[in-house]
Amino acid sequence: MYSFNNDYSEGAHPKILEAMMNCNLAQNGGYGLDTHCENARRLIKEEIGRNDADVHFITGGTQTNLITIAAALRPWQAVIATDKGHINVHETGAIEATGHKVLAMPSKDGKLTPADVLKALDAHTDEHMVQPKMVYISNSTEIGTQYSKADLEALHHICRQNDLYLFLDGARMGAALTSPVNDLTLRDIAELVDVFYIGGTKAGALFGEALIICRDELKPDYRFMIKQRGAMMAKGWLLGIQFEELFQNHLFYDMAAHSNDMASILRKGIEQCGYTFISESMTNQLFPLLPDAVIEALSADFLFSIQERGTNGSSAIRLVTSWATREDACHAFVAALQNCKIK
Amino acid sequence: MYSFNNDYSEGAHPKILEAMMNCNLAQNGGYGLDTHCENARRLIKEEIGRNDADVHFITGGTQTNLITIAAALRPWQAVIATDKGHINVHETGAIEATGHKVLAMPSKDGKLTPADVLKALDAHTDEHMVQPKMVYISNSTEIGTQYSKADLEALHHICRQNDLYLFLDGARMGAALTSPVNDLTLRDIAELVDVFYIGGTKAGALFGEALIICRDELKPDYRFMIKQRGAMMAKGWLLGIQFEELFQNHLFYDMAAHSNDMASILRKGIEQCGYTFISESMTNQLFPLLPDAVIEALSADFLFSIQERGTNGSSAIRLVTSWATREDACHAFVAALQNCKIK
Amino acid sequence: MYSFNNDYSEGAHPKILEAMMNCNLAQNGGYGLDTHCENARRLIKEEIGRNDADVHFITGGTQTNLITIAAALRPWQAVIATDKGHINVHETGAIEATGHKVLAMPSKDGKLTPADVLKALDAHTDEHMVQPKMVYISNSTEIGTQYSKADLEALHHICRQNDLYLFLDGARMGAALTSPVNDLTLRDIAELVDVFYIGGTKAGALFGEALIICRDELKPDYRFMIKQRGAMMAKGWLLGIQFEELFQNHLFYDMAAHSNDMASILRKGIEQCGYTFISESMTNQLFPLLPDAVIEALSADFLFSIQERGTNGSSAIRLVTSWATREDACHAFVAALQNCKIK
Amino acid sequence: MYSFNNDYSEGAHPKILEAMMNCNLAQNGGYGLDTHCENARRLIKEEIGRNDADVHFITGGTQTNLITIAAALRPWQAVIATDKGHINVHETGAIEATGHKVLAMPSKDGKLTPADVLKALDAHTDEHMVQPKMVYISNSTEIGTQYSKADLEALHHICRQNDLYLFLDGARMGAALTSPVNDLTLRDIAELVDVFYIGGTKAGALFGEALIICRDELKPDYRFMIKQRGAMMAKGWLLGIQFEELFQNHLFYDMAAHSNDMASILRKGIEQCGYTFISESMTNQLFPLLPDAVIEALSADFLFSIQERGTNGSSAIRLVTSWATREDACHAFVAALQNCKIK
Repeated sequence: MYSFNNDYSEGAHPKILEAMMNCNLAQNGGYGLDTHCENARRLIKEEIGRNDADVHFITGGTQTNLITIAAALRPWQAVIATDKGHINVHETGAIEATGHKVLAMPSKDGKLTPADVLKALDAHTDEHMVQPKMVYISNSTEIGTQYSKADLEALHHICRQNDLYLFLDGARMGAALTSPVNDLTLRDIAELVDVFYIGGTKAGALFGEALIICRDELKPDYRFMIKQRGAMMAKGWLLGIQFEELFQNHLFYDMAAHSNDMASILRKGIEQCGYTFISESMTNQLFPLLPDAVIEALSADFLFSIQERGTNGSSAIRLVTSWATREDACHAFVAALQNCKIK
Repeated sequence: MYSFNNDYSEGAHPKILEAMMNCNLAQNGGYGLDTHCENARRLIKEEIGRNDADVHFITGGTQTNLITIAAALRPWQAVIATDKGHINVHETGAIEATGHKVLAMPSKDGKLTPADVLKALDAHTDEHMVQPKMVYISNSTEIGTQYSKADLEALHHICRQNDLYLFLDGARMGAALTSPVNDLTLRDIAELVDVFYIGGTKAGALFGEALIICRDELKPDYRFMIKQRGAMMAKGWLLGIQFEELFQNHLFYDMAAHSNDMASILRKGIEQCGYTFISESMTNQLFPLLPDAVIEALSADFLFSIQERGTNGSSAIRLVTSWATREDACHAFVAALQNCKIK
Repeated sequence: MYSFNNDYSEGAHPKILEAMMNCNLAQNGGYGLDTHCENARRLIKEEIGRNDADVHFITGGTQTNLITIAAALRPWQAVIATDKGHINVHETGAIEATGHKVLAMPSKDGKLTPADVLKALDAHTDEHMVQPKMVYISNSTEIGTQYSKADLEALHHICRQNDLYLFLDGARMGAALTSPVNDLTLRDIAELVDVFYIGGTKAGALFGEALIICRDELKPDYRFMIKQRGAMMAKGWLLGIQFEELFQNHLFYDMAAHSNDMASILRKGIEQCGYTFISESMTNQLFPLLPDAVIEALSADFLFSIQERGTNGSSAIRLVTSWATREDACHAFVAALQNCKIK
Repeated sequence: MYSFNNDYSEGAHPKILEAMMNCNLAQNGGYGLDTHCENARRLIKEEIGRNDADVHFITGGTQTNLITIAAALRPWQAVIATDKGHINVHETGAIEATGHKVLAMPSKDGKLTPADVLKALDAHTDEHMVQPKMVYISNSTEIGTQYSKADLEALHHICRQNDLYLFLDGARMGAALTSPVNDLTLRDIAELVDVFYIGGTKAGALFGEALIICRDELKPDYRFMIKQRGAMMAKGWLLGIQFEELFQNHLFYDMAAHSNDMASILRKGIEQCGYTFISESMTNQLFPLLPDAVIEALSADFLFSIQERGTNGSSAIRLVTSWATREDACHAFVAALQNCKIK
């Protein structure tokens, strides 16, 4: 049984574990105030070309989202997202639990547009309604699509014009940046958004997200917020070590590229079988629409989740590849699919 | 200039002010522990036929909504409403500020259906998503429509089957119960919902909502919650006196019936001019679709709000009548409308 | 049975009710956007000599406290108060319910000192602890004492030096300002604090507090916050009318002076009987220490609360007078006390 | 420079890292639904003798505290702790950020007594105050002291009598249970408290706390709460593996015993130098009172924190030992201290 269930089914790249091993008994300062975190911050600032940015390491994505949003907003302010946004659907109301409404704009492709932003602004006109103040996007999105540089520039401009913060959830940033259709760099992103993060958990680290704050007014007292939400790791250098490894020697990009390559094998195989996808993903998440009988057959050997249960005999499944996905498993999946077809 | 802007543009029925006057210098216990509140509770329990219910008086509707919802839900639970629900749109995120997500189901007529409830339940399957636990409806709704007894019974059953609380916001309960198409009584409602309130603010009181808790598990420690949210009035007998007046001698119903009668004059006049409505309201809120030029002309003499700005030269306005609306003003509005038409 | 239980046992000054009566059927804008509120704002700004201040009318004190504190603080910030502070003890955790810690400094006389503020600051040194950002004081205090001009200037300076907001809860401002030992004016207060309120509920209004924001950075978007917490009254002009009456013709001060005069009768009578007080109050709240047998005897004819149950046969009670307290009732209380003594 | 700054300055016991290495490339289910977590749960249930308990693994202590408290309390309820309690001082208001007041009872030795609990209950009498519902204690405490079985039984009884939940923060449970004066077992604790946790972070794991819920009414829907607060680790098996190692072959106790042994060397050395302690700790945290000049001299070679800066030329420092503390470092510290004394 091989799992395409998600991109966090395996541990970490061996180099990361090795680095942890090597300094296991060294004494370090706690709570992210150590030399590894310091070095990792430096590496990331170089990578994004913003020495003025603040970089914080946080254990997981939901924490990073709720901290970033709750630290930025006043009590009556809201965040605009797509209806598919991770914060809208898959964080058990974490944002609302900090007191803020998520304004969910319907989206087919998982991407938020300037028109969506304007629509949200137009609908919120006075003090009887929440005040939109932040825009939340994910790159790659929850359904594997991704923002182009033009997309992001357009959002940047609409946010600047309307005094909105632009926040990019990069839990799957690696997959987006190494996708064949990508035209964005971390430097671009650091110019165009106010705050974003680079995901480690889904990119070959054991855990950890690097939160990068580019806008000055969002920076003060951030460590208070991180600590209050229980997201300041005592042995914080474990985060530092991982991001050192990720951003030394291109490891972050290499692993993400591998996950996309594995997805390409699956995508091409599925296409050759004549099936379509419910989302145009060039990243490591694929959403093919398959006959229910085929899905059942594949379930004998592969783990994956159902994305949308259909009513006409076909359903969309979700296949996710990772830095650790084995090429032979991808070929095996395609072979199994072809086999189903033949029967 | 006459205002059809809302149903809280005037003070209170003279009998209510008179009753306040009459006991102005009497000494009373504070915080709702006084003989007027006690008597008003008794009157309401008689009216709803539920001596076992708990009745609390709260200053306003937003407070009543947020207290009721936040007291009922555990931190990870959510409330299902329509997208037009007052809690979803017009309370500046008051529910989210208590930590809870509002699951907004699209609705054309402002009424929530069992199918909507099931759809919300189906979409929330595990601990990565909020857990729906309460259903919020308004009667009459935010666009003037109302629930029939059959509607409410159906919601009651779906809620019971799925262990959901059913909460009815009755800020405009009077208008619903005295509408020509109504087949519900307060007794029915007290049987079919778990918690609801009878609005005073929009029904001829100076302020005040009577919150009625029918379900035992929702009752404990409610006064703590009311106090914590700043909704326990020091001079609480002011609420008691008003509900005494409302539920002695049928005053509550008489005033609501008047508001509906006035709306009928407007509705018939508008229909006779050949205009349509965006919502089928038989209560005190009407939403006619009028040519923008007509709207502009009417604005010279009447106050009302724009509900939906149209793009094809027509827009929907909102007209609201109240216990205090003058019949001559309604006729004047109709005359002005006819006059516009003639031109 | 006569009640000295609190200063909100009766309705409102007849002039206030009369003013409400007189404009009962006039149509007004909702939510505090009406001519009465506008006029009352003007009167208050004149009284405090600060035309640049923002003035908002809120129904009750707990709401005003929680709104002011939650609107001013970032999520990790805390408010410093005395351990007797209303927000610390008597608001059912309303401040904590908005997410903020109250740092309660022990105080004998109910007054916060610069030394207390420094002590709180010294104890909070890094991001593992909350960040003190606001100082909360009450004038008169919860035990009837009051701040002198020198006291308030000292707090002002310590707050300025340490970048803390200074917030004064004036629920009993009237009693403080008309006390025989007072040397503060509303003008002084408006110069020395960042935000404060003038209480109506305990000063002869039916309800209502006038919140006054002097510091610019605290002003933006306040109406959003008021609405979100359910504190924006639909018929807001009811608040405007009351503050118009309070600040026309000196009514606010006259009523407060009466309450202090009535307290003086009680205080002198108690002193003549040889009893002492647990707090040096020159305002309308008195806390005499009486033998338990005397307390029991007085309870036959008077209502009051026990402040501190003693263990040696004596307890402190709380006596409160108001704008409506009858002089003959005060004399009767003193006579009853003398009578107890004789026996 | 050797650090006695805390017990989380080094990584993890090599066996733990080795176990992680060994299954690094195996595919696991996410979010704690994997065989390692399942096995670790079984081991812990065996250890505590409660097969009916629910066990959840959470990344850190602050998260565990805030989740446990916020999941147990209704909005108006409060938790009783000592003024030294970690939740009261060192979590940046994390509990208040969930909406709940911490009732901090003054304590000299860091231990809460039944008398403290009763005092808190007596002071909270009605709905104008928070309602105490949970008791929070730490074992060992924040200043190294610990609860005896009799202590815990007494707290158990007072909590049962007053319908309070008893919650034990066991971030330093290992040090408490292996202290020479300990008479408690995990089985005792599981009988006497309603919910508690066994700390991994400060006991030789990389991170992780095992939360154990013994009381049925606290169990439902816990995974929702964990997820909402961002505390449900994607690669949850990392927690499972660590607790497998800790509770196989006694590793948890062995490491804690080592930390206590190292502290004993320090304690005895300090005592022999004639210095006293501000807390009677037999665990891995020591608080000696030393002349400021001695402290300065020691600072040249050792890292530690100042606990209480004194005014008479002496201050209390905090020394913490861990599973990784080297014996030679302890002897070196004692030698350095003796050396200071001689000078």
